[in-house]
Amino acid sequence: MTIGQRHWVIAEGYLPPFGPNPDDPTLRSHESACILNPGDREAQIELTLYFSDREPAGPYRLRVPPRRTLHMRFDDLADPAPVPRETDYASVFVSDVPVVVQHTRLDARPQALALMTTLAYGS
Amino acid sequence: MTIGQRHWVIAEGYLPPFGPNPDDPTLRSHESACILNPGDREAQIELTLYFSDREPAGPYRLRVPPRRTLHMRFDDLADPAPVPRETDYASVFVSDVPVVVQHTRLDARPQALALMTTLAYGS
Amino acid sequence: MTIGQRHWVIAEGYLPPFGPNPDDPTLRSHESACILNPGDREAQIELTLYFSDREPAGPYRLRVPPRRTLHMRFDDLADPAPVPRETDYASVFVSDVPVVVQHTRLDARPQALALMTTLAYGS
Amino acid sequence: MTIGQRHWVIAEGYLPPFGPNPDDPTLRSHESACILNPGDREAQIELTLYFSDREPAGPYRLRVPPRRTLHMRFDDLADPAPVPRETDYASVFVSDVPVVVQHTRLDARPQALALMTTLAYGS
Repeated sequence: MTIGQRHWVIAEGYLPPFGPNPDDPTLRSHESACILNPGDREAQIELTLYFSDREPAGPYRLRVPPRRTLHMRFDDLADPAPVPRETDYASVFVSDVPVVVQHTRLDARPQALALMTTLAYGS
Repeated sequence: MTIGQRHWVIAEGYLPPFGPNPDDPTLRSHESACILNPGDREAQIELTLYFSDREPAGPYRLRVPPRRTLHMRFDDLADPAPVPRETDYASVFVSDVPVVVQHTRLDARPQALALMTTLAYGS
Repeated sequence: MTIGQRHWVIAEGYLPPFGPNPDDPTLRSHESACILNPGDREAQIELTLYFSDREPAGPYRLRVPPRRTLHMRFDDLADPAPVPRETDYASVFVSDVPVVVQHTRLDARPQALALMTTLAYGS
Repeated sequence: MTIGQRHWVIAEGYLPPFGPNPDDPTLRSHESACILNPGDREAQIELTLYFSDREPAGPYRLRVPPRRTLHMRFDDLADPAPVPRETDYASVFVSDVPVVVQHTRLDARPQALALMTTLAYGS
């Protein structure tokens, strides 16, 4: 099965303040790139982060095994540098095999949570 | 009318905890794949679920009659196995006729509800 | 300018209960199809609603003047029949000129509001 | 890298009332068009706003440097005219180089926040 595309863009990126549960990874504010590799070969992905006022950071290197999904949290990225909070950014994923990428943010600033998601731009 | 595509991917999948109304199907946390079959032939769809750490589950078999919509809830799936809660997954739909798929999550963990939706990736 | 497509599908449709402000159209639960006609000719659009358990309803006839947007609320539709609340549906738009359609729901059941939006499926 | 497209449409546009924190730009109601220019040349973009009952406004002129993202807030637009609040609108972006555009709204009317996002329509 060769479903998917090799280039994906998430133009909206922003890690809000943690909110009232900073120690609970599922309830504090975060953003994810949910990546599906439906194929039979491991996906090797280079992720580059773009900012409003400086040169891009990266590449961050991700691997998604065959027939697996990776719900990659941007606040888990560390090498070459963590993603700054409360800073506008955007991201480009370049994979060596076809994958699908969907973007989700959970904003825990309100007493209640706010959620948003969209398919990324694939080409 | 032949609107639609035969392959659809939802890369983001996660069933949050039920929240404060576990017995009300419309108000407890859930995810749906809303499928429209605008054509004149029944759609026979094979759904496969992908995980982060094990082989895919499925196929789940869905049928959408001609000129009908099915708002399929992931927490209703049972055969071959229910979808685990609080677990990352992704889903691939393969239909024998063109359909359209949109993904929606209602998260009832906050006292208020949080909602998100996106068109799935079609090819 | 000929930006847009002539066929658009919103596979997810559901009008939640009104919520605590039933008399305020901007704050009660509703769904919209936001349509942009960027061109120089009026768009004549036929909208058909699909359900899970009965034949489609419509066509509903919409007109969007040249260089105008119409944020069409599903709870304003009346002819040939209003859209039932708390009922799964889906919608197909067929326009005689290229347009762009985006789907938005405001859910006012929670004390706070929940919002979701997505680009519709265009072809 | 030539990822992206030159024409983008956001058919849904609406600036809700400010909400309870009118003086905090990150917490008052707003809409953004997040634009990524992944290429090596500055993007010069003409933005036109469409309304339901009058001729379009614009063009607004935006510049996004090479390898930068611009999270453009609609409530920051001033020339040729600010965007009216509580008014339906839509927007068309025409860029001289490929870019990617994603639309986000934060609605601060509820005590909690509501969020929504979607990839814009590219062509």
